[in-house]
Amino acid sequence: MANIGFIGLGIMGTPMAGNLIKGGHTVFTHTRGEIPAVLLEAGARPCASGAEVARQADIVITMVPDTPHVEDVLFKPDGVAAGLSKGKLVVDMSSISPVATKDFARRINALGCEYLDAPVSGGEVGAKAATLTIMVGGSEAAFDKMKPIFELMGKNITLVGGNGDGQITKVANQIIVALNIEAVGEALLLAAKAGADPAKVRQALMGGFANSRILEVHGERMVKRSFDPGFRIELHQKDLNLALTTARQLGVSLPNTATAQELFNACAAHGGAKWDHSGMVRALEKMANFEIGQ
Amino acid sequence: MANIGFIGLGIMGTPMAGNLIKGGHTVFTHTRGEIPAVLLEAGARPCASGAEVARQADIVITMVPDTPHVEDVLFKPDGVAAGLSKGKLVVDMSSISPVATKDFARRINALGCEYLDAPVSGGEVGAKAATLTIMVGGSEAAFDKMKPIFELMGKNITLVGGNGDGQITKVANQIIVALNIEAVGEALLLAAKAGADPAKVRQALMGGFANSRILEVHGERMVKRSFDPGFRIELHQKDLNLALTTARQLGVSLPNTATAQELFNACAAHGGAKWDHSGMVRALEKMANFEIGQ
Repeated sequence: MANIGFIGLGIMGTPMAGNLIKGGHTVFTHTRGEIPAVLLEAGARPCASGAEVARQADIVITMVPDTPHVEDVLFKPDGVAAGLSKGKLVVDMSSISPVATKDFARRINALGCEYLDAPVSGGEVGAKAATLTIMVGGSEAAFDKMKPIFELMGKNITLVGGNGDGQITKVANQIIVALNIEAVGEALLLAAKAGADPAKVRQALMGGFANSRILEVHGERMVKRSFDPGFRIELHQKDLNLALTTARQLGVSLPNTATAQELFNACAAHGGAKWDHSGMVRALEKMANFEIGQ
Repeated sequence: MANIGFIGLGIMGTPMAGNLIKGGHTVFTHTRGEIPAVLLEAGARPCASGAEVARQADIVITMVPDTPHVEDVLFKPDGVAAGLSKGKLVVDMSSISPVATKDFARRINALGCEYLDAPVSGGEVGAKAATLTIMVGGSEAAFDKMKPIFELMGKNITLVGGNGDGQITKVANQIIVALNIEAVGEALLLAAKAGADPAKVRQALMGGFANSRILEVHGERMVKRSFDPGFRIELHQKDLNLALTTARQLGVSLPNTATAQELFNACAAHGGAKWDHSGMVRALEKMANFEIGQ
């Protein structure tokens, strides 16, 4: 059993850390706020700083909202890096910039420590049920060391390549999911406006090359007008911002990702920041002055 | 066994008509060009005009390139309509305008005849193997009458709704397929330019919500640089033109379909009209000045 540091006790981090404790590991943590009672009762050990977490633990996991938070947690004066010693392992499970990740990994490596980027998909439900998909970038040795620990949090765990490759895979995933939602939205809206029954059209499409998990799950949400999250539009906006920022840094043009982000912005303008991301179809519906199921 | 008229003996129509003859039906046909030898040898019966086909047959199938060809075949002076009598059935298996289809159906109905729109997907391979997907619009009675005949040509046969609903389902299918190809292209290109191995990224994505038949089949084509058709860009351009024209007629905005069409246009500008449609990624690659697998 390992001594594991865990920083970032939000909606995702709290059940993930809980699953590590349930798995028999000792979990050290630090937070600016309060440590959730459920974790304290389970035996989580509070520390005075990120540096203290890194001194107590052999593996330090971070699960925070965005790139600047990871940089802060790792590299501020009393942050994780200040407490690391040779041979320790830093595992960032946040969804952040693939470009910044390569820099963070180099700075951690310079301290004689390994770094893995290991963003997840599957949301709060997957975090609680320990069924997260985990996309990993880093060395095979570090991956092998973490694998039994990842398995306490997730199910579909892949080492994609070196540092940053886990993060870029997460970005690629969010691009495809957003654009496939947009595609299903355009298709079902056009069919509905032409007078067809969108439920029957969806059913017919599921037999062919248009089929996807998005057509099955999000297509059904569009037909049934079921836009309670699920995965909130404001979170997908963050992910597409990451995609578009990364694309700009790398010199890649992502025309349909850009449009999808604008459609999410339009949803937010209509009070939809907390709708399920399948609600993107509503931005298309506003333009068409028509709703599926009307 | 029925007397079936079949007009449109192209790449798709020839094997489809052949399968009807193999199934024991008598096939009457008319073409401005030459009737393929393979059909004459199998017993196809040439007629002097579309009107003559309609007089000889109880069911008349059309399988021609686009909306104006269907209108011409049905309604020119010696066309199909001129030879129809009450109780006959017209089945248009071409992929054409859903809006025009409703008009054609009304004009055929006015002659006391039923009309089905029944576009297919599955291409030449599906036509030869009798594994086409057939999306049908029209009455249940006409569908039931045609079903055993459809089953000689296809496998996944769905009555979606009334006239036009088969065509709009085909259009919806082609929108989703094009936009999912575009999505996979944006995602894999960004990942590759970031330095990740696109084959491994694709593999990792196949476990989650980004998965689709397009990621499996067309994603693999992008990684392996295998752009021999398959389904040609110039054919998908025709389908997206139908989508965009229909959208304009109905007052629906399809922003990503419009962009996908422009990307196909860019491929055509680089000599790619006959590439497989997964070659759409090459238009994105031109913009990024970078190729997947580079």
